Amino acid sequence: MGNPLIFVNIGMKTYLCTHNNKTMTTQQLHEQILQKKSFLCIGLDVDLDKIPQHLLNSEDPIFEFNKAIIDATYDLAVAYKPNTAFYEAYGLKGWQSLERTINYINEKHPEIFTIADAKRGDIGNTSSMYAKAFLQDLNFDSVTVAPYMGKDSVEPFLAVKDKFTILLALTSNEGAFDFQTKQSGDKELYKQVLETSKTWKNSENLMYVVGATKAEYFKEIRQILPDSFLLVPGVGAQGGSLQEVCKYGMYEQVGLLINSSRAIIYAGNGGDFAAKAREEAVKVQQEMAELL
Amino acid sequence: MGNPLIFVNIGMKTYLCTHNNKTMTTQQLHEQILQKKSFLCIGLDVDLDKIPQHLLNSEDPIFEFNKAIIDATYDLAVAYKPNTAFYEAYGLKGWQSLERTINYINEKHPEIFTIADAKRGDIGNTSSMYAKAFLQDLNFDSVTVAPYMGKDSVEPFLAVKDKFTILLALTSNEGAFDFQTKQSGDKELYKQVLETSKTWKNSENLMYVVGATKAEYFKEIRQILPDSFLLVPGVGAQGGSLQEVCKYGMYEQVGLLINSSRAIIYAGNGGDFAAKAREEAVKVQQEMAELL
Repeated sequence: MGNPLIFVNIGMKTYLCTHNNKTMTTQQLHEQILQKKSFLCIGLDVDLDKIPQHLLNSEDPIFEFNKAIIDATYDLAVAYKPNTAFYEAYGLKGWQSLERTINYINEKHPEIFTIADAKRGDIGNTSSMYAKAFLQDLNFDSVTVAPYMGKDSVEPFLAVKDKFTILLALTSNEGAFDFQTKQSGDKELYKQVLETSKTWKNSENLMYVVGATKAEYFKEIRQILPDSFLLVPGVGAQGGSLQEVCKYGMYEQVGLLINSSRAIIYAGNGGDFAAKAREEAVKVQQEMAELL
Repeated sequence: MGNPLIFVNIGMKTYLCTHNNKTMTTQQLHEQILQKKSFLCIGLDVDLDKIPQHLLNSEDPIFEFNKAIIDATYDLAVAYKPNTAFYEAYGLKGWQSLERTINYINEKHPEIFTIADAKRGDIGNTSSMYAKAFLQDLNFDSVTVAPYMGKDSVEPFLAVKDKFTILLALTSNEGAFDFQTKQSGDKELYKQVLETSKTWKNSENLMYVVGATKAEYFKEIRQILPDSFLLVPGVGAQGGSLQEVCKYGMYEQVGLLINSSRAIIYAGNGGDFAAKAREEAVKVQQEMAELL
């Protein structure tokens, strides 16, 4: 498909973007947060059973849905996060929709931080293949990674320059209490993950998934990670409070990306679904503006 | 693509197979092990940089490579395990090669147990999507899953009838010692994973990944899991001993699938690569026949 160089002016910034080499710094992400007065990440978890019926007649309903959501919310969100499961569930066509979606974001809105929510992790040479797939070929800014297999399963992701690895630490689901909050040595496993990962090579490329279900956890997490970006699922639908999370989790450079998926993208189900999604995103963005 | 019913006679057994509904029991897997005198699983981790050059001219080099390896080894191996990373690294084309590979195995050799080595795991509704992708649409017999997110991230896989979920317990890489072997409560995390997972719904559909790097671990693991199938990477290239693993890990119904990837599939690099792969597989199979 070639590698057109694209110079894009967003506000005062110029972003340089090629199909295979988009880069973004946490500094740029922070600037975007200040500019948009938002630290909202929208999860693009597209389920064909839930999207408006009229889209099903199009050639690529998943992409058409995403495109409409992106067009309606790009000034309110600082990140988009497609969860790969929802694309793999549709096989080849789904993978194609994922490619189209990330290419669309990178071309139209290169200032927006992109997250492949893939939760990968394998032995070294295999993790390298996943890193290539998501951070280089698909050209996401970041990918979520599971920590269970340890250092050599994560470092191949960290080795990709100017990209980010978002490590699962404390997730927002019930199963988080099966292992993550159990003692591992002298501390809970998720804290062990946070501390151990800080010693890994290129750990400056780490961000972390920290669920919002128990906001007081953020206090202790910020003692371990004073200035890392945290991707926070579980606000809203899953019960977490935005105010509580910000109270304990925000620092001077914000350092939070709050994810919302279903509450925004499925706010409406008719011809006006994108407008309804925008309405929901505006509500969240306004709440965020007050908290900043 | 339609769902042709295929009746296939293998030895004394008849297997019923449709594109979307292949089933296999551990009983059938055990019978196959006795018949082939083998518990070898071949890892189909195809790297275009490592396969014979002449294949690169074909329309689908990954599939052509796999087809040749499968044709040369299907009577020696009881399982094939493509690692999804190696396919995702080639994007849409890679995903297509994976589809062709699993369809080829299911049509030509439905007696062989298939493993999607995907190491997935996410919150419940998302794990359901992965389960659909690998166990239903692609129609693998099993999929590997990471335990970090706990019960509700694994149970959607276990809910798929007549399919297996292979949970990461103790992996074969160095990073296994970062968290898996750390104390979690009163026991090492990997033992906690084994014991906790036994309480999950449909846990009879569980198998486990247990690396071969420390064979004495198998003694204790068999006390927790007397009769579960264990998928064992790390024999050969990664240093584990087949004899040691069998001494501690085998029970009356065998219960072991020993994986070998690179040592077999990259045994040769010329026009005779498939024959070379067969030679290596024969060596392993003969060693296994003696141990049975």
